[in-house]
Amino acid sequence: MALFQNDEYQARIGKTKKRMDDSGIDVLIVSDPANMNYLTGYDGWSFYVPQAVVVAMDLKMPLWIGRGMDVAGARHTTFLNEDHIIGHSDNYVQNPVKHPMNFVAAEIKHRGWERRTIGVEMDAYYFSARGFLALQKDLPRANFQDANLLVSWVRLIKSDAEINYMRQAGKISEIVMETALNNLFPGVRECDAVAAVYQAQMAGTPKFGGDYPAIVPMMPTGEKTSAPHLTWTDEPYRNNQAVNLELAACRHRYHSPLARTAYLGKHPPEKLVSLAEHTVEGLNLTLEAVKPGMCCEEVELVWRKHIAKAGLEKESRIGYAMGLNYPPDWGEHTASLRPGDKTVLAPNMTFHMILGMWMDKYGFECSESFHVTETGCETFADFPRKLFVKG
Amino acid sequence: MALFQNDEYQARIGKTKKRMDDSGIDVLIVSDPANMNYLTGYDGWSFYVPQAVVVAMDLKMPLWIGRGMDVAGARHTTFLNEDHIIGHSDNYVQNPVKHPMNFVAAEIKHRGWERRTIGVEMDAYYFSARGFLALQKDLPRANFQDANLLVSWVRLIKSDAEINYMRQAGKISEIVMETALNNLFPGVRECDAVAAVYQAQMAGTPKFGGDYPAIVPMMPTGEKTSAPHLTWTDEPYRNNQAVNLELAACRHRYHSPLARTAYLGKHPPEKLVSLAEHTVEGLNLTLEAVKPGMCCEEVELVWRKHIAKAGLEKESRIGYAMGLNYPPDWGEHTASLRPGDKTVLAPNMTFHMILGMWMDKYGFECSESFHVTETGCETFADFPRKLFVKG
Repeated sequence: MALFQNDEYQARIGKTKKRMDDSGIDVLIVSDPANMNYLTGYDGWSFYVPQAVVVAMDLKMPLWIGRGMDVAGARHTTFLNEDHIIGHSDNYVQNPVKHPMNFVAAEIKHRGWERRTIGVEMDAYYFSARGFLALQKDLPRANFQDANLLVSWVRLIKSDAEINYMRQAGKISEIVMETALNNLFPGVRECDAVAAVYQAQMAGTPKFGGDYPAIVPMMPTGEKTSAPHLTWTDEPYRNNQAVNLELAACRHRYHSPLARTAYLGKHPPEKLVSLAEHTVEGLNLTLEAVKPGMCCEEVELVWRKHIAKAGLEKESRIGYAMGLNYPPDWGEHTASLRPGDKTVLAPNMTFHMILGMWMDKYGFECSESFHVTETGCETFADFPRKLFVKG
Repeated sequence: MALFQNDEYQARIGKTKKRMDDSGIDVLIVSDPANMNYLTGYDGWSFYVPQAVVVAMDLKMPLWIGRGMDVAGARHTTFLNEDHIIGHSDNYVQNPVKHPMNFVAAEIKHRGWERRTIGVEMDAYYFSARGFLALQKDLPRANFQDANLLVSWVRLIKSDAEINYMRQAGKISEIVMETALNNLFPGVRECDAVAAVYQAQMAGTPKFGGDYPAIVPMMPTGEKTSAPHLTWTDEPYRNNQAVNLELAACRHRYHSPLARTAYLGKHPPEKLVSLAEHTVEGLNLTLEAVKPGMCCEEVELVWRKHIAKAGLEKESRIGYAMGLNYPPDWGEHTASLRPGDKTVLAPNMTFHMILGMWMDKYGFECSESFHVTETGCETFADFPRKLFVKG
């Protein structure tokens, strides 16, 4: 059974078709697993093989096309009728002479769409160069158009039902952060602290469990705080060091990331304490300023003006749209809180605002996930914003 | 510091260049994160942005090319000299008008390779269609050649140092499976059993910790056992049902998957007990038959002949090469234990042999990860092979 009501999927498909119509696209081949899920409900760890949801102006309901063994999963998780779920034989998989996109092309031909304008997600994670060439070769009369992020932009404004799952993820993220802080001590191995975090992410609350986040827990310390994507080791955490906690929780594939910084030791350096104060003050001020009708770059400006007073600046963006997603990223790659982004905020848009300030030898970060409301914004988690000193 | 000795990386690069030479490739752009790690040591959760390792016949040492903020991670994890680590500015990232592969193309031009034969991994997970078109557009005089799996085939035979990490992963996988079995009871929510499994995967042993496996834990029960890629829910496990446990452990990105089946209830159905016996007997026989010099399809034949005696057959392959990997898959997409695969077994090749037998309403699976030795094979884990009855 699909997660949302049928009319919610119909509304999503309607908005997608409106954008297809605006771009002159007749047939859209969706490969991004989050977009596939959004349009049909499909949820499975099967994106390691090529698969697609096809939206056509000619069809009321999308098609799910994938591996034969995943048809049962599509029946189980989507709202689609049986005859809109199409599986191919297993010999398309990891085969040097044929590709699942050959099968998708055959289906498109079979339906008489081979001369149409076909949208493809050219930069989606699981749409490979070989898959694209297979489509081009088999559909030489089609007019291919890059429809990268077309569905992702439709995802920008969430429904109340989606917000509800993100609230649940936010609730779990509080437990996850508390678990991380309770397991951080000098002498504890990084892998053991991470193990406790994973446990909390999946166990969730007594009322609702957790799902796997699209990014692994990041808890770097020492020199590794300046190498943002390194994962954990077996090394023990040391005394008198800061630890950055970039964590998240996930509920039915909807995320709520949360970042904090802890200091292991009784006496954090004065400059770290002062950086934490400026950053938290800026985060508070910026969240208070968020209102529908503002544009993304205006939100960033509130932050930038605040830290300029403290003589600081931050080059990178301070936030991005997020929600439903799969590995390797929970970000939606659409709106960003940064100069130049003119996206106008509207109720039920959801962002992760992350303020990471990196100095020469130390850093502080603090983040919130929130949704825009009718009058301002509301965070999904309720967790103290400060430097956590574990003396 | 890179994980392996410099001469081990040099040997890997030497074998890669040999294959490049055989295919007439001058410059190889490697995008698969496992291949990037294999050739340089690079290990970070940064594959959500395009990045590459470039191997050139003209250069002794490969180049790492990626996002500026990941340069520190490359310095930290690779054996490369500082001047072989090249970062680009952050405005290449998620930018609709420029792409990180434009930067890679500029670097290739800068080195005078723009008329050479350039190998690209056309079906790698994180090499997008848009990335390929960016290279083609910027390097119109280059001769592009599909080098998909070129490095993956070099990875087929592991070094003793790699086997050592897989042995450690195997040791952790025993703890993981035991934890799963200890947490499976009627009434326990699926998410809570999965939480315990994750905890065990990362905590590892007191001597060495675990790393995140490339695939999430799969523990389906009831009707979901026939939908192999669905993940967990909040539903409690029920009495008188079988649960399939497809788990793994990972050490420094090296995997050791392990699958077993449990039955919750005192009295498993006779036909399940009998299927389990035939399958385990077949697994034992097939593992005993493995010897260097045999080819992959001969291994499969041992299994097929055995189950034919019980009036059974299995359509899909019974195993595949695996080892070093990143999400979304731990399989190497090279050799498979299936009819038609003539790959000749050699010492230190590593496989996951997984025997999943699915009947109408029930199923049984059991697997082992092993390496080929001088005289036979040796599994990485030591765990009873049977149907686990939890009465």
